Amino acid sequence: MSTSTSSPRDQLIRSASTPLAQQLAQRYAERIQQRLLLPGARLPSVRECARHHGVSPYTVVAAYDQLLAAGLLEARKQRGFFVRESAPKLKPAARSAPVATAPRAFDATALIRGMFQADAATSPGLGTLPADWLDRPMLQSALRKVVAQGADALTLQYGEPGGDVRLREVLAQRLNADLGIAATPSQVLSTVGATHALDLITRGLLQPGDAVLVDDPGWAIEYARLTQAGMRLLPVPRGADGPDLAVMDRLIDEHRPRMYVTVSVLHNPTGQTLSLAAAHQILKLAERADLLIVEDDTYAFMAPNHAPRLSALDGLRRTLYVSGFSKILTPAWRVGYVAASPERIDKLTNLKLLSTLTTSPLMERAVALCLEQGQLRRHAERVNTRLDAARQRAVRLALDAGCQFITPPQGLFGWVDVGVDTERAAQRLLDLGWLIAPGLLFSATRRAGTAMRINFATAQDARFWKLLQTLRQEL
Amino acid sequence: MSTSTSSPRDQLIRSASTPLAQQLAQRYAERIQQRLLLPGARLPSVRECARHHGVSPYTVVAAYDQLLAAGLLEARKQRGFFVRESAPKLKPAARSAPVATAPRAFDATALIRGMFQADAATSPGLGTLPADWLDRPMLQSALRKVVAQGADALTLQYGEPGGDVRLREVLAQRLNADLGIAATPSQVLSTVGATHALDLITRGLLQPGDAVLVDDPGWAIEYARLTQAGMRLLPVPRGADGPDLAVMDRLIDEHRPRMYVTVSVLHNPTGQTLSLAAAHQILKLAERADLLIVEDDTYAFMAPNHAPRLSALDGLRRTLYVSGFSKILTPAWRVGYVAASPERIDKLTNLKLLSTLTTSPLMERAVALCLEQGQLRRHAERVNTRLDAARQRAVRLALDAGCQFITPPQGLFGWVDVGVDTERAAQRLLDLGWLIAPGLLFSATRRAGTAMRINFATAQDARFWKLLQTLRQEL
Repeated sequence: MSTSTSSPRDQLIRSASTPLAQQLAQRYAERIQQRLLLPGARLPSVRECARHHGVSPYTVVAAYDQLLAAGLLEARKQRGFFVRESAPKLKPAARSAPVATAPRAFDATALIRGMFQADAATSPGLGTLPADWLDRPMLQSALRKVVAQGADALTLQYGEPGGDVRLREVLAQRLNADLGIAATPSQVLSTVGATHALDLITRGLLQPGDAVLVDDPGWAIEYARLTQAGMRLLPVPRGADGPDLAVMDRLIDEHRPRMYVTVSVLHNPTGQTLSLAAAHQILKLAERADLLIVEDDTYAFMAPNHAPRLSALDGLRRTLYVSGFSKILTPAWRVGYVAASPERIDKLTNLKLLSTLTTSPLMERAVALCLEQGQLRRHAERVNTRLDAARQRAVRLALDAGCQFITPPQGLFGWVDVGVDTERAAQRLLDLGWLIAPGLLFSATRRAGTAMRINFATAQDARFWKLLQTLRQEL
Repeated sequence: MSTSTSSPRDQLIRSASTPLAQQLAQRYAERIQQRLLLPGARLPSVRECARHHGVSPYTVVAAYDQLLAAGLLEARKQRGFFVRESAPKLKPAARSAPVATAPRAFDATALIRGMFQADAATSPGLGTLPADWLDRPMLQSALRKVVAQGADALTLQYGEPGGDVRLREVLAQRLNADLGIAATPSQVLSTVGATHALDLITRGLLQPGDAVLVDDPGWAIEYARLTQAGMRLLPVPRGADGPDLAVMDRLIDEHRPRMYVTVSVLHNPTGQTLSLAAAHQILKLAERADLLIVEDDTYAFMAPNHAPRLSALDGLRRTLYVSGFSKILTPAWRVGYVAASPERIDKLTNLKLLSTLTTSPLMERAVALCLEQGQLRRHAERVNTRLDAARQRAVRLALDAGCQFITPPQGLFGWVDVGVDTERAAQRLLDLGWLIAPGLLFSATRRAGTAMRINFATAQDARFWKLLQTLRQEL
């Protein structure tokens, strides 16, 4: 999977030995294989495609012919060219990822897979900080120390089932001192990123068929995980004032949910943070309905420590606190954790043994070093200063392009109303080399709409916003 | 969880400021918390305990009193002291792992958790090579190279969903060239150790209620995972001649299983390797019954490459090949993989995204370096030479102690008939500082018996075998 999504710099190469038509056909074939174009998706018209790529219509026709011949496209009379609903099996060597069976034109997995290869400069929808915002020297120094010290326990043996002891100690300190969450080191379980923690919780504390309250909009991977595990999603609208508590109240009475999974602070994608009053109300509802609350604090280091955490108010009685380091340190290390009551941690530890045995003690110790020495805190301060400036600029660009903010801009992500269907816009923009995150991906009911998520750090290119403005008028 | 299991070197300290009784009480409290002693387990008699620890009976009585007062033990008239069935909640600071709810005296999780802290010198039941058999310089050099090269893709971004490209390339080469398994790099998916691969397969290719054929004896974690996921286990007896094909045939007709999970080469715990004829027969059965076969090749590097792999015969049509590096390189890195048909890899990749997003590209690149440069192959050759000698010595010691080998000794593990109930023996030996792996842990039906698994590399201490011989006469 060394293929890359097309970008403005990724032009067809006129001097190459490969004919332009073949280059174009290969590009679309890759995109179909990477699932950025899924079965049923319409390709641009010949004229449109020719214009975008600066080639003649004959070249486009030749490219589409090659794709038709390869069985990747089908022509529909009067309507144009579409990705075949049941694309043929490609030869293993030629395919990086098979075509999905689900007939969706743009699904969560496609976005996620696309984003792993995305170029931050052309991905205003990116989910993480761009690589050049991260503190590479800090990361390398921590790793070098871990390798040099290289205690046997880190190098030659399974890690502790609960995770590296020093990481759990420093995390317990942070929880207590910074966030007001009372937890001992033995109440902290390390995981392969926050995702793994959420996955263990789904498997360990829910039964298939359980109803689960989720924020809507929210994170597609969480919806996908819960759905895949057989849960019923109960979407709670989340807007500028936080979750709609009246809806939550009604859903509780109607469906008797077992759990509420929420990002309380700098919610993805709205950027909204719970007020203290809302946090208190949610816990009262949870008490009445005997709900478990999973507090996903993925953006913890981008928010003030005094932002109210449900787990702090509740004391980890019916809350489980989940966080990680992908959004601030690096996504490459895959270190996350969950803090909860000793009984729940014990259950989740057993499940962790079944799912991965242990996690890598090396990566965990490296995170511990970054935390222990205050480096991560200082790095987070620098990131937040820079993010404030980037946010100001991106907001201005967005407003100038005629977009509106659905919720007040905060943290890493902006939740923007573009005024046109963002699923269609996403396809068009992809043709032009820009990866955005359409609202569909954050909808619990998978509804298309006019919203999109932007990453303030990567939505800085005025050309993107100009293009979006043009597109708004076209669509 | 910095506590350790007691070992001969882990004596009570007479000069310490902590009284002997308190030291003894703490040791038992730890063991109860670590679940090496589970609810219902009987403690040694006062006289026995005094003799083992070289203290007076008064000291033991004082220690047991403290444990009674702490609510950890209960005294039963005429019978002695037992771990309380419902041990009280310990204060968080004092407990590393809560007491299990399952009333088993010695369960899989206990062994596994115990083994993570085990001292190889006193753990003849250990599941991995002892740390001093591993090639620390090779491991450190590979890590240093990865950190020094530190490409952005390894340091600052999510890894590829499928895993590090170079690792997958070198694994595909190995599969093709060494094992005769035809697979492209895109047919290889990296995971957090082989355990994670087996877990993704369970979740992605089975439905709760499915019947699954398993080897019996076999690996407790695999039984536990399948059971936890709601599968019905169909145990196939595995002995010196391999799986009992007549039983398998009958089980297929009676239960229509969906899958057979097996260790084809150097099976854990019997050490048995499928003959070519048996492999062919199994595939014929699988064809008839439309079975998927999961081939767990965890001990791949300890077996000759020409040992027949089901996946090689079948060409990954109905087989999925799983392996990893915990048994040869180091358990600390947590790198494993699965090779399968493109469609199955695609499905498992989506599930991997839901379970951990990606895996750590750093650890994967480090494994790739060890493989690419032939270092791992040379290390494996050295390990196998050393293991051959260790096996010879351990076999002699075991036979001299009156034990019998149930299957011919091969590979890392020996499957030994001790002649007395090994669950009882395990508890007694634990008191004396030795960690063994009783047959119960390898029984799909959780039946106690007289078998135990030994690790040839760690079963070298003549004192252990002498002790076992004495115990055989006592029990």
